Amino acid sequence: MVRFFVSAEQLQLTDPVLIGENANHAKVLRLKSGDQVLLCDANENEAICQITKIESDKVALSVIEKRSSSSEPRVRVSVYVAFSKGEKLEHIIQKATELGAYEIVIYPSARCISRPDEKSQKKKLDRWQKIALSAAEQSGRGRVPAVCILGSFKDALRRANLSQLSILFYENEQSTTLQMAIDKFYDSISIMTGPEGGYEDTEVEEALMHGLKVCTLGKRILRCETAPLCALSAIMYASGEF
Amino acid sequence: MVRFFVSAEQLQLTDPVLIGENANHAKVLRLKSGDQVLLCDANENEAICQITKIESDKVALSVIEKRSSSSEPRVRVSVYVAFSKGEKLEHIIQKATELGAYEIVIYPSARCISRPDEKSQKKKLDRWQKIALSAAEQSGRGRVPAVCILGSFKDALRRANLSQLSILFYENEQSTTLQMAIDKFYDSISIMTGPEGGYEDTEVEEALMHGLKVCTLGKRILRCETAPLCALSAIMYASGEF
Repeated sequence: MVRFFVSAEQLQLTDPVLIGENANHAKVLRLKSGDQVLLCDANENEAICQITKIESDKVALSVIEKRSSSSEPRVRVSVYVAFSKGEKLEHIIQKATELGAYEIVIYPSARCISRPDEKSQKKKLDRWQKIALSAAEQSGRGRVPAVCILGSFKDALRRANLSQLSILFYENEQSTTLQMAIDKFYDSISIMTGPEGGYEDTEVEEALMHGLKVCTLGKRILRCETAPLCALSAIMYASGEF
Repeated sequence: MVRFFVSAEQLQLTDPVLIGENANHAKVLRLKSGDQVLLCDANENEAICQITKIESDKVALSVIEKRSSSSEPRVRVSVYVAFSKGEKLEHIIQKATELGAYEIVIYPSARCISRPDEKSQKKKLDRWQKIALSAAEQSGRGRVPAVCILGSFKDALRRANLSQLSILFYENEQSTTLQMAIDKFYDSISIMTGPEGGYEDTEVEEALMHGLKVCTLGKRILRCETAPLCALSAIMYASGEF
């Protein structure tokens, strides 16, 4: 069933409507009266609806059944990714959303080779949030992960450490594995991965001082766009998701 | 240290040379006399070498130390991927190599929307093997995963089932998890994932009849290029790689 994210207000109506991009999307998919669709707010509430009428600028629906989303993972994983080239970040945001990330946080790091200025950050953030929305619809998520940008590496460390477990992955770490770090079920986990050029040693020391664990992702060097998705997949597995 | 894959014969010499694309690559990287590089055959043997001379068409080396590669995973994972759009397969081959795949096998499935003819298959295979080689060099692998194409879905099932454990991932499977399937350490595991449109029910039944386990990858629908990498990451984690 096709999934549309709508406002919480729409979801409370018995006759909700799809407007704007959702209405356009329904037309692109050639949905017609009688078809069923799934409406979803950003907060794990869903409603199975039937299309009652397709008008020029909106699609009228009637609610068949309300329910809670059952597709969200039990563990909330915050994915902290260093600024890197645009298409890599877009790839990470799309895939991390599919894989069940709770939120995606972009932050600067010493060796970042690209970091957009404030004006283009706003534009990029809009685009990234749309990518997350679209991936959430396609993968059947019960919520859309928020994408946000932090101003400094320190801010990222401090925020990451608010989770029950916070881990920075470092290619030169050899002894501490992710298996050691996930010694029980954690409700919330933050994972941090570096930019194309990796972390500076001093950044890793700072992370340790801020209370993060520093772990390896194995003996092979992963690209900056592969590492967060590998870690996220492993954490979902370790947390009993599949 | 930059890694170059060479023939087993070259690796046995005390004064090996880089030729062809390897020599060009060394020049692109602006390596110079005195720099150290790592030579590697496809069979987990390595030699740390020093550049002695850079000539127009070759780079002369002398061996400092021979050793076995320590970067290959203990578990051999064969990644079976259904034909899908070209750029998706290229993405999977690159990332699966980084993540430690033993080999990558492309096969046809009922809902495959693209399947190249024999002539372009040969060309694609060359290209795919180059992508695997380049990803193996960048990620520091001790071997280059072989990429191959099979002629039928049945061939894929039969070949996959030669591994100690063979698993097909199906989006409609709800009860059997990967955690249940990996009940101990396996030396060799085959994983199969479907094309853009997913598997037909009859294909899943055939897989069961051939002795494969059918597992879920969680409650979210993963794209065809995400599923194999998610499963591979989880298996590497479960097998004690990180």
